[in-house]
Amino acid sequence: MEAAYSKLWLDYKPLDIPFSGSLAIRCLKGVRRDCAAVSELITALSTLLPGAELTFGADSAAFIVELDIADYLSPEGYTLSADERGASVSGGSEAGLLYGVFDYIRALVTEQGLTRISRKVSPALPLRMLDHWDNADGSIERGYSGRSFFFRDNEIIISDRTVQYARLLASVGINAVAINNVNVRGEAVRFLTSAYYQKLDMLGELLGRWGISLYLSVDFSAPMSVGGLPAADPLDPAVQSWWREKAREIFSSVRGLGGFLVKADSEGQPGPYAYGRDHADGANMLARALKPWGGKVIWRCFVYNCSQDWRDTRTDRACAGYNTFAPLDGHFDDNVILQVKNGPMDFQVREPVHPLFGVMKNTALAAEFQLAQEYTGQQLHVCCLIPMFREIMEFRMHNGRDKDRVLDMISGAAAVSNTGDSFCWTGSELAGANLYGFGRLCFQPELSAEDIIDEWVTLMFGGNEEVSEKLLYILLGSHEAYEKYTVPLGLGWMCKPNHHYGPDPWGYEFDRWGTYNRADRDAVGIDRSGRGTGYSELYYPPLCDIYSSPETCPDELLLFFCRVPYTHVLKSGKTLIQHIYDSHFEGCEQAEEFYRLFRSLEGSIDAETFRNGCERFKEQLRCAKEWRDIVNAFFHRLSGIEDEHGRRLY
Amino acid sequence: MEAAYSKLWLDYKPLDIPFSGSLAIRCLKGVRRDCAAVSELITALSTLLPGAELTFGADSAAFIVELDIADYLSPEGYTLSADERGASVSGGSEAGLLYGVFDYIRALVTEQGLTRISRKVSPALPLRMLDHWDNADGSIERGYSGRSFFFRDNEIIISDRTVQYARLLASVGINAVAINNVNVRGEAVRFLTSAYYQKLDMLGELLGRWGISLYLSVDFSAPMSVGGLPAADPLDPAVQSWWREKAREIFSSVRGLGGFLVKADSEGQPGPYAYGRDHADGANMLARALKPWGGKVIWRCFVYNCSQDWRDTRTDRACAGYNTFAPLDGHFDDNVILQVKNGPMDFQVREPVHPLFGVMKNTALAAEFQLAQEYTGQQLHVCCLIPMFREIMEFRMHNGRDKDRVLDMISGAAAVSNTGDSFCWTGSELAGANLYGFGRLCFQPELSAEDIIDEWVTLMFGGNEEVSEKLLYILLGSHEAYEKYTVPLGLGWMCKPNHHYGPDPWGYEFDRWGTYNRADRDAVGIDRSGRGTGYSELYYPPLCDIYSSPETCPDELLLFFCRVPYTHVLKSGKTLIQHIYDSHFEGCEQAEEFYRLFRSLEGSIDAETFRNGCERFKEQLRCAKEWRDIVNAFFHRLSGIEDEHGRRLY
Repeated sequence: MEAAYSKLWLDYKPLDIPFSGSLAIRCLKGVRRDCAAVSELITALSTLLPGAELTFGADSAAFIVELDIADYLSPEGYTLSADERGASVSGGSEAGLLYGVFDYIRALVTEQGLTRISRKVSPALPLRMLDHWDNADGSIERGYSGRSFFFRDNEIIISDRTVQYARLLASVGINAVAINNVNVRGEAVRFLTSAYYQKLDMLGELLGRWGISLYLSVDFSAPMSVGGLPAADPLDPAVQSWWREKAREIFSSVRGLGGFLVKADSEGQPGPYAYGRDHADGANMLARALKPWGGKVIWRCFVYNCSQDWRDTRTDRACAGYNTFAPLDGHFDDNVILQVKNGPMDFQVREPVHPLFGVMKNTALAAEFQLAQEYTGQQLHVCCLIPMFREIMEFRMHNGRDKDRVLDMISGAAAVSNTGDSFCWTGSELAGANLYGFGRLCFQPELSAEDIIDEWVTLMFGGNEEVSEKLLYILLGSHEAYEKYTVPLGLGWMCKPNHHYGPDPWGYEFDRWGTYNRADRDAVGIDRSGRGTGYSELYYPPLCDIYSSPETCPDELLLFFCRVPYTHVLKSGKTLIQHIYDSHFEGCEQAEEFYRLFRSLEGSIDAETFRNGCERFKEQLRCAKEWRDIVNAFFHRLSGIEDEHGRRLY
Repeated sequence: MEAAYSKLWLDYKPLDIPFSGSLAIRCLKGVRRDCAAVSELITALSTLLPGAELTFGADSAAFIVELDIADYLSPEGYTLSADERGASVSGGSEAGLLYGVFDYIRALVTEQGLTRISRKVSPALPLRMLDHWDNADGSIERGYSGRSFFFRDNEIIISDRTVQYARLLASVGINAVAINNVNVRGEAVRFLTSAYYQKLDMLGELLGRWGISLYLSVDFSAPMSVGGLPAADPLDPAVQSWWREKAREIFSSVRGLGGFLVKADSEGQPGPYAYGRDHADGANMLARALKPWGGKVIWRCFVYNCSQDWRDTRTDRACAGYNTFAPLDGHFDDNVILQVKNGPMDFQVREPVHPLFGVMKNTALAAEFQLAQEYTGQQLHVCCLIPMFREIMEFRMHNGRDKDRVLDMISGAAAVSNTGDSFCWTGSELAGANLYGFGRLCFQPELSAEDIIDEWVTLMFGGNEEVSEKLLYILLGSHEAYEKYTVPLGLGWMCKPNHHYGPDPWGYEFDRWGTYNRADRDAVGIDRSGRGTGYSELYYPPLCDIYSSPETCPDELLLFFCRVPYTHVLKSGKTLIQHIYDSHFEGCEQAEEFYRLFRSLEGSIDAETFRNGCERFKEQLRCAKEWRDIVNAFFHRLSGIEDEHGRRLY
């Protein structure tokens, strides 16, 4: 039976080079013949070079690939050298070796030949993680790619798809995966009971073989929901002892377990606040239980008041994460990692970089991104996020450190996965670029977004230049286009409530979520300077000054930081209102161009990808027009100002 | 075991009069001793007059109630005469007799004594119907009173609650009930199969005993979904024959069946349009199948395009029902009744009266009302609809008939029920007034709303004058208050999408439902005159002229018919914008006053009603403030005009 899913970028095909004769794999001291690196190498070479006669260790072979473990390398680092007669890959551990092997295979495929290579690589970020928001019943919160392939009807699934997924993640350097939703509900609460240990152990062992640690999202009140205790107070010795015992039990039963991921005191989830404790109390209590087992606690900083009164203009949700966690810097145990969303709100198409990345100088941090396109078109719209992720990682916090980029402040990055059981894993084939690119970026952030996407396009669609050029053009322009036809200049939250798809400019305006644009007939945006909510003051100079005035604030974040009249003149020389009109017409034209370009690929890419893509580009264009006309109508009705070019506004 | 539900206005209690001795019921020729009228009389008298010795037919009794069937009366009519020595009730049939008996009991309770009465009554409308939107799985569409008591898990339920419900309906003169949702989905499609006939027969027999005909909502495409035919074209002989055979089968199996209720070609339901046929073709085809069995087809006129482009300002949903049905006047068979919603949109707090009531001079019509408070506070807010219903029935269509009120143009009225399995049947005790009042109004529309509500309050809460006065005040003022703090001047559709509770001024503005307010910084409302969408021209003079100009249009419908600037001066002398502000503050104060008045009844009404009421009044007040502040903020932000009284706007 054919696999009911695509192999994505691991769909090896014979290289277009003449190669016959013997090809030997030599496993030097320390390299087990049945490790993942060796098995991947066999899988790849036997397909890439179908004429080759594959053997182990034959010195006389015409082509020899030598694999080694080298102590002097960091565990996940590797060296790779290759030429037309063979290759040598050394890893700091089997994981490093595996990454080196994938790099070599990637080079063979992208170069379509036995190229000369010599490089030493180690991953920039120690933790490179995917967070699945998969529920035990098989549904996926904010999932746009079908059902979960980890769970079905409250059972854990392990299948050949699981293996394929582990290979895909390892191939881009992902080394940790939280398999269940941070909103731990229903049966998922009971993953911390022995009923699930056997399956979790099988899964942890499988993932571990591919260098991936298994994480579980846990319910902070598990001592009550699972343990039957009367409370879950982190300072209560009975609670501490329950978690210690639970950690002993699960870590000694489940191989490959990395630790716990926790969403506490957020959007209805339980947390330490219920007991008058702070987030350090909560996180450290768990961390101490996991410490003997080498486990880590990944603690989310997405904490805010989700029952705000919209009439209250002083409370600013943007400040909430900072205000909660900044005072606790230095209070966290060393096996706690705070997971900070890239911006202070919630994965909008444009947000400033989260100020916590600057201030938490004595705390281990991971940046949290979202591959699932919750607010960016839900995988019906093409929206390649890699340029944005890279820009965020490179952003300088000006916090007095020598190296002050976000990348320098974090020891990890996690991303909400965009996968499900759809044929192509991510609903849209093009959304796979985000999955691929996130891993590659965490591993080698020195790569440009263009390098990464080009690599992905080549691996996915082969060397056809027209295909590569057009897809690269679409993908690299897609985030800008999406931003243009949706929410202007960092304003955020103009999507429809609940499902977050399509436009509703005031859908969140009079609600409890702290997400307002405060538009009226004269002006729009929120003054977040010291004269307003004070949010901009959470940044170090010069950022706090730059953000505090419409004259200095970058245009793309203007409406996040400042309240300005529709007649305000942007750095582009346009008035705000004319910019809104223009960008919406332009973004929509881009969506139209993308669709046209994609349609021109008929016959050059496989039929199913073409059909699926066309369907989605068509929907993207329909929806882009809705966005254009509704957002423009909204501001036109409020401002009363006509379009300079006389285009139809509603 | 105590019944898990209230007896509502049939909770008889001993009268506060001295009565002992014998009391005889005499059933004259034609009156069966086991008919509902007799059993109700026994139930009532044995409780009302606990000292009485109840016998049958003893001439020597001190007090005699004589029951008779009289040919000269219309079947549902009755005469009632009574004094301190006895009473005589004659009905045109057992149904008329039953209504007379209920009238007599009502008089005993409200007068608290053996009063003198002499009257002849017959119901104004032949069809007095409740439509249940109950689904086979037990859920209720737009239900705010718990689950269905007709269905559970795809089974039909018959219990003592069913009997109690039949008594309640009969006591207010309801003579027909459609038990399932007009959106016929899931297992309900199969009610037309023999699997359900036995239960339907039991139910039909039970209801019939109380003078109530059983109606089923049916799927227009049942020949396909049930019959397996390839199509449901009403002009296809195979389809006609299928329905004829189905009618024979079900009418010969189910006693008390009155006919079918059909929602066709509306909001996704199948209908004749799929086959290029019109609604007369569809309705008549069914009517002919039911004709031999005396069955009726009740055909809804709620047909409109629910995929409208919001950019399209020429298409007007308000015109849709008229445009679909007016050309077909006179084309319907005589056992078809067209069910026309009270207004052209959908049960908003204020709409003009539907123009079809004027133009359909040669078609049997029923007015459709909604007791379920879908758009009027969902039974969390008190909103007594009886004054509005009465106003609509009394509204003159000026269509050239001698008697030209809506009441004169219809032969029936149906209302979407507000009941469920909640303890008090309607979620809120006070919402019961709508159920009671609708029945009474259909029977005797000459009664004033105040008469009806006063009667209900007395039956429900006894003769305590303070209680009666306060509840009467609350109920009679409640619709006006709700209108004031929600949607101004007939504008409609400012509720949250989907669930329709709470404010969202532009929640329906950019959507596909044909429900727009077209507000901008200068003006609001839709010009529906001949210069605009032309809707006002669907009325006869002088209505069409009155509605076509802001100078003559009644204020309460101004924003339905006209587009006017915020500075437009109303007949009240206020500007439109000031009226919006004032009415929202006033309505909210009324909600506050209602809550205060209700709280003052503690101890004077039963504890459960008090507790339940307080909870709901509290929520009403909270929500009224939301409405006030959001609607005022919306118009303030658009208009930029401050409140004359300097009150806080957001």
